[in-house]
Amino acid sequence: MSAALHNDSFLRACLRQPTPHTPVWLMRQAGRYLPEYNATRARAGNSFMALATSPQYATEVTLQPLERYPLDAAILFSDILTVPDAMGLGLSFGQGEGPRFARPVRDEAAVAALQVPDLDRLRYVFDAVAAIRKALAGKVPLIGFSGSPWTLASYMVEGAGSDDYRRIKTMLYARPDLLHRILAVNAAAVTAYLNAQIQAGAQAVMVFDSWGGVLADGAFQRFSLDYTRQVVAGLQREHEGARVPVIVFTKGGGPWLDEIAACGADVVGLDWTVNLGAARARVGHRVALQGNLDPAVLFAPPDVVAREARAVLDSFGPPQRADGAHGGWDGHVFNLGHGISQHTPPEQVAALVQAVHAHSRSQRNPR
Amino acid sequence: MSAALHNDSFLRACLRQPTPHTPVWLMRQAGRYLPEYNATRARAGNSFMALATSPQYATEVTLQPLERYPLDAAILFSDILTVPDAMGLGLSFGQGEGPRFARPVRDEAAVAALQVPDLDRLRYVFDAVAAIRKALAGKVPLIGFSGSPWTLASYMVEGAGSDDYRRIKTMLYARPDLLHRILAVNAAAVTAYLNAQIQAGAQAVMVFDSWGGVLADGAFQRFSLDYTRQVVAGLQREHEGARVPVIVFTKGGGPWLDEIAACGADVVGLDWTVNLGAARARVGHRVALQGNLDPAVLFAPPDVVAREARAVLDSFGPPQRADGAHGGWDGHVFNLGHGISQHTPPEQVAALVQAVHAHSRSQRNPR
Repeated sequence: MSAALHNDSFLRACLRQPTPHTPVWLMRQAGRYLPEYNATRARAGNSFMALATSPQYATEVTLQPLERYPLDAAILFSDILTVPDAMGLGLSFGQGEGPRFARPVRDEAAVAALQVPDLDRLRYVFDAVAAIRKALAGKVPLIGFSGSPWTLASYMVEGAGSDDYRRIKTMLYARPDLLHRILAVNAAAVTAYLNAQIQAGAQAVMVFDSWGGVLADGAFQRFSLDYTRQVVAGLQREHEGARVPVIVFTKGGGPWLDEIAACGADVVGLDWTVNLGAARARVGHRVALQGNLDPAVLFAPPDVVAREARAVLDSFGPPQRADGAHGGWDGHVFNLGHGISQHTPPEQVAALVQAVHAHSRSQRNPR
Repeated sequence: MSAALHNDSFLRACLRQPTPHTPVWLMRQAGRYLPEYNATRARAGNSFMALATSPQYATEVTLQPLERYPLDAAILFSDILTVPDAMGLGLSFGQGEGPRFARPVRDEAAVAALQVPDLDRLRYVFDAVAAIRKALAGKVPLIGFSGSPWTLASYMVEGAGSDDYRRIKTMLYARPDLLHRILAVNAAAVTAYLNAQIQAGAQAVMVFDSWGGVLADGAFQRFSLDYTRQVVAGLQREHEGARVPVIVFTKGGGPWLDEIAACGADVVGLDWTVNLGAARARVGHRVALQGNLDPAVLFAPPDVVAREARAVLDSFGPPQRADGAHGGWDGHVFNLGHGISQHTPPEQVAALVQAVHAHSRSQRNPR
């Protein structure tokens, strides 16, 4: 697998194989906190979608953080809402607003009309994956991604971001049949979408269940995790002789760690409310863990950033052979517990990456 | 204790004593979903603060939900931000906006100037407590409340609600000494404030740690729970011969259930992400539990509301003598996992209360 890769530490950690240091990447690492990103975006008419739909722009911004920092993975520059957009819901991003759908899915007719989109409408994504892979030239692996069926459904039904998820939760409790139909379509679409990314060259894929944590216990299992599990089960796990790790991240998913760890993914992403050492003790023999620094730490001075990064590494503890049935090692991929803030000073990211690499090396080679 | 109380089921459940049914009340039960509340508020010039600062209006709206529904407790109509307002921060509620402080606490000078407020500036709250107690005439007990030191601090530093808590988290990581000073002042103020409510007649008190769940593991313990524990330790636990139960509610506190249950409170409030049966098994021998229906269930038809209410009761399970060292019973107070939404149809609340009472009686008397 790693023949053509200069740095395969991320893929190895995902698969719980030994690594010389703890690999690190950051959710939303190509983004507005970087002046060079804002410059590219300005050239693209200040339009997020113009960036995302152009393989050339997408490649340019995907690579920007890697030129600044020795990150151990790249992640496709795109948005989780490309799939519902391809379903015909009419995605737009207003200035200073979040995403919005012109045709939300709210009634029986709209639900019945919903279909897995023609993947040709998402060709720009797969073209971007191929272009980024080529541009990376084996420097680090490329992660593809999608929203989870539930997270996509919440945008599709609400029509935009929401404080209280009133529309989709009303559907969940009053018309669960409609919601199950949306989720089944989404699960099939997400599976096909991620498999096409893998075919195009994504070396790992991540499912973002950004809104799973707003569900009640019981509802989370039936309306989010069950469909994520369907997606994971349908993914192509090997491509060109290499294993393709799958990461599942549920923001606010701490209460359901055991169940999420049993969904078939190789890696479980954790937000900052979770105690990493306790999580490792519970599920570290079955899955690798990704996370979980509070992104707000990056507003503090570099010495504090370094100290808090070391605390996360110490909470996980030094890697060692796990006792579990699989005989693998415990794996840790360092990340934030959520996307990096646009207000982050870029210097703090340099301090973070440096501290993760240095401290994790010293964990492996104690004096 | 219950001599003058016609219905003491709420207090008994808080203290893990047997009750004929599971008591139920709802966070924010006096509020905008009730037409009669909106009518009173219109008379008060559509001003939330005009309602909260008038003992007469506060009494009127506190009693409104009890006239409609056979709820088992009343809760003082007020706001958690009365305390920082009394500290001189200048609270206002814009139309259609959340609360805002004219003078947020953001620099060293503002932090140094912060003091426990003269309780006379909060006299209107204690007068409201006394007036409501009198008007209730022993029908059900009255709950007093306050925000937690951390939750108050987040409003005081941010100056308003926040998506990312950037200002206070920057202070937390970069200048923890400043934040600890704010929290120490808040803890002393909240303790005095709740004790004055108890003196005025509050028969139980609740600490709302509404924003504890945004903190990272480790930071939650040091910056939220430690100060909540200080408050609980300083409270007067008996008044006029009756035990005054203390409830602590941390939204998003599921990951820290064991630690919260050890903070000295009689009751721990849970949001809807927590599995109530699992929580009972872990800490039910030490504390009563309050919660935890998703408020969004109340957007569904009455039969669904009743079904979901029964599911919460069944998840907790029938009450029985606990095996713990205290020799008490397991206690459950039915509530939502967060405040009731202003969009709730009032009829659904009737269905909820009816279902909780009927099903919990049948749990105690199985055929």
